Amino acid sequence: MTTTTSRATTNLEQMRRIFNPRGVAVVGASTQPGRIGYAVVENLKNGGYAGGVYPINNRAEPGQALLGYPILKGVADITGPVDVAVIAVPAALVPGLVPEIAAKGITGMIVISSGFSETGNVDLQKQLQAAAKQHGVRVMGPNIYGYYYTPQKLCATFCTPYSEQGGVALVSQSGGVGMAILGYSRSKKMGVSAIVGLGNKSDIDEDDLLEYFGQDDNTKVVAIHMEDLKDGRAFLEAAKKVTKHKPVVVLKAGRTSQGARAAASHTAALAGQDRVYDAAFQQAGVIRANTLEELLDWARVLQMLPDPAGEDVVIITGAGGLGVLLSDACEDYGLELMKMPKDLDEAFRKFIPPFGAAGNPVDITGGEPPATYENCIRMAIREPRIHSLVIGYWHTIITPPMVFAELLAKVVREEAANGFTKPVLATLAGDVAVEDASRYLEERGIPAYPYAPEKAVAALGAKYKFWRGSKAG
Amino acid sequence: MTTTTSRATTNLEQMRRIFNPRGVAVVGASTQPGRIGYAVVENLKNGGYAGGVYPINNRAEPGQALLGYPILKGVADITGPVDVAVIAVPAALVPGLVPEIAAKGITGMIVISSGFSETGNVDLQKQLQAAAKQHGVRVMGPNIYGYYYTPQKLCATFCTPYSEQGGVALVSQSGGVGMAILGYSRSKKMGVSAIVGLGNKSDIDEDDLLEYFGQDDNTKVVAIHMEDLKDGRAFLEAAKKVTKHKPVVVLKAGRTSQGARAAASHTAALAGQDRVYDAAFQQAGVIRANTLEELLDWARVLQMLPDPAGEDVVIITGAGGLGVLLSDACEDYGLELMKMPKDLDEAFRKFIPPFGAAGNPVDITGGEPPATYENCIRMAIREPRIHSLVIGYWHTIITPPMVFAELLAKVVREEAANGFTKPVLATLAGDVAVEDASRYLEERGIPAYPYAPEKAVAALGAKYKFWRGSKAG
Repeated sequence: MTTTTSRATTNLEQMRRIFNPRGVAVVGASTQPGRIGYAVVENLKNGGYAGGVYPINNRAEPGQALLGYPILKGVADITGPVDVAVIAVPAALVPGLVPEIAAKGITGMIVISSGFSETGNVDLQKQLQAAAKQHGVRVMGPNIYGYYYTPQKLCATFCTPYSEQGGVALVSQSGGVGMAILGYSRSKKMGVSAIVGLGNKSDIDEDDLLEYFGQDDNTKVVAIHMEDLKDGRAFLEAAKKVTKHKPVVVLKAGRTSQGARAAASHTAALAGQDRVYDAAFQQAGVIRANTLEELLDWARVLQMLPDPAGEDVVIITGAGGLGVLLSDACEDYGLELMKMPKDLDEAFRKFIPPFGAAGNPVDITGGEPPATYENCIRMAIREPRIHSLVIGYWHTIITPPMVFAELLAKVVREEAANGFTKPVLATLAGDVAVEDASRYLEERGIPAYPYAPEKAVAALGAKYKFWRGSKAG
Repeated sequence: MTTTTSRATTNLEQMRRIFNPRGVAVVGASTQPGRIGYAVVENLKNGGYAGGVYPINNRAEPGQALLGYPILKGVADITGPVDVAVIAVPAALVPGLVPEIAAKGITGMIVISSGFSETGNVDLQKQLQAAAKQHGVRVMGPNIYGYYYTPQKLCATFCTPYSEQGGVALVSQSGGVGMAILGYSRSKKMGVSAIVGLGNKSDIDEDDLLEYFGQDDNTKVVAIHMEDLKDGRAFLEAAKKVTKHKPVVVLKAGRTSQGARAAASHTAALAGQDRVYDAAFQQAGVIRANTLEELLDWARVLQMLPDPAGEDVVIITGAGGLGVLLSDACEDYGLELMKMPKDLDEAFRKFIPPFGAAGNPVDITGGEPPATYENCIRMAIREPRIHSLVIGYWHTIITPPMVFAELLAKVVREEAANGFTKPVLATLAGDVAVEDASRYLEERGIPAYPYAPEKAVAALGAKYKFWRGSKAG
């Protein structure tokens, strides 16, 4: 085993080095736009990565450059510090690269190349694993799109750069799912710390990443798409530690017998009994999503919402019908509608028409001006017995969507400055103007759902799952 | 009881008259923009309604007009034929209007006014019901936003006009939900025949509407939001007849104990045991949605998809990971993945790389050019043993989103011209460009979901529920 003085020895040290590399080599760099070996170099540059970038191609001619970087014939020729090598050469050549990479002191190989066990070449993947283990190099992949780490402006991938910095670390086993993650995140302006493809998981898997993200101050929420767990025990141990202070959401694909069959043919994943996964996730405090949209929406909202101080949820709505749908969803997602105390009931009644309904949902009725929404929302945010607030807005001429959005954002901001914070989410029922109003709210940190009341409650339910687990832990 | 020779005597005759009126009176018309009595007249005019419009205000001065229509002092002064009166006067005045309206031969009163049982004025509502019954006038409402019927360009509502003609009739009990329906429909360009508010349901309820929509050639799908059923037996009888040839989707709010409590305080609805509803819906062939988004999305897609010829569903995907999520969803929504016959398996293998997976899902793998998608999709559409097709697209440089969308739309169109039609849905995983590609597909009649594979399968599941019921009936 070749070692250098700077060799990282623990998993955490190795992951730190991989996510914060001093330099990145791109093995299989290409001067042809459209090729993976070109796109990776281009993304490192355009993403704004500040470390060293080293295109490597053993057929490089002296003096040849790519996007301003000299192309080197081998990693041995790199003169600056380098911690990561992104690999984009044909699969058969990959295991042979390991000794040279290890000799250079590189910690992690990011193997984009496909053509390993996913195409039946199990032996080739075993060769790669054996070489990497022998030489003390960690492998991400093979068969992946690469990875992003926004705190370092690192886009070590052939996909397009991602620049919205934030606290969600997203991990996926499948490239297709990874691309959906990228598009969804960009569309929703989700602040992201990392997007990582795990592919065949020949070495680095979910528990390795959890250990890093758990202690990473840039990461507030971890969201994982997986088709299997190579080491269930290690995952659960790692997850248990993280979920005490950061939410971990998992979409376990291959939940059903038809899905498990598809997963087996896809990555040769041994999809376990789903009930075993379910029990294990619950025990580890992991929030389980059933669809890709749940995984992504919950991750997004978990980052936006502060923790609640208790179980009592209040709904304030301009439309009784929305109140009913929101109440149904509260029961579906395990949330408790607060039993409204008499004094609070009376206090709400002062703001709403005599035929409005206090109790919970607080139904302010549809004909009310902005002041009624504002008074009720402000009181609910200031009231310590109310722990979370879901608002069902009804589009009317008297309180148009943007007027509602501006007043809600203002009240939340003002009361946060006064020291009153709690989860506040909104759903907006109305004509298409509610879409702009929802975007306005989201940009100000308030989750807002046009036309889809139940989704607001589902996301709050995910927050409560995390909060209960972290409290118990 | 006052009758005229033109009095409609059966429910169907009355509904036909209400949805296809020769003229509409607006009682409580106002010359002040922003007032309900102004907005209704404005919407009738701007919506393009071709029948007579008669603003009524008992304080009208001689010669006064509203948006070009002379304002009359009472419905008795109307000279042309008139079948509907939209009521926007204070609640207390409404019952007293009935004799005059009946004397004019008007069939339906659309009572927008609120202030009846929903605000505790149960007696006033009873007075309205008694007067209407005595005089043979049907009442929609009270406490509603009005109704739309696009084949007549009829916007008898204070909300904004809706012009996207199509086959979905949408019914809601709550005004807030009605506004969400309006915005969602407009945003998704859902073709609609009718949008109807039922509010307090003092008279006209779901079964009355089902009888009309069931025989209405302009209506292909009926979607209903309800909080209660005043006459469960009548609803089931009416639904049973319709579901034999048109899908009926229902969102029954107040499903849960928390939701039922909220519903009771909202419309004094007696939310029945949910299991009773569930069994009854199933017996009547009604498709039950659990969320507002499901109600609306399923209604939209039920209209777009042709009926399948059998149970065998095939998934074609560029990303194995999408195939797994789609397979899970198939099991969740009761769909059967076809067991791929040997000859078909071999036929697919001719188009895909050796390491791609035939079987079902057909995994063409991510590096394939447009021709691979096209060959596989065309074969699946022409193959009579395949009854429905779900496509999981993965965004790559080799087959960009719009290239995929154009080829899919082309193949579906060409094969339809060749006589091959079946349900085809797509989900698109990729960067934000998949949103435009999805819109392109939707505009060409192919349901397409960016980032949300499971939703495509859920909608296909709704189609199968209808198809199985109609086949059994």
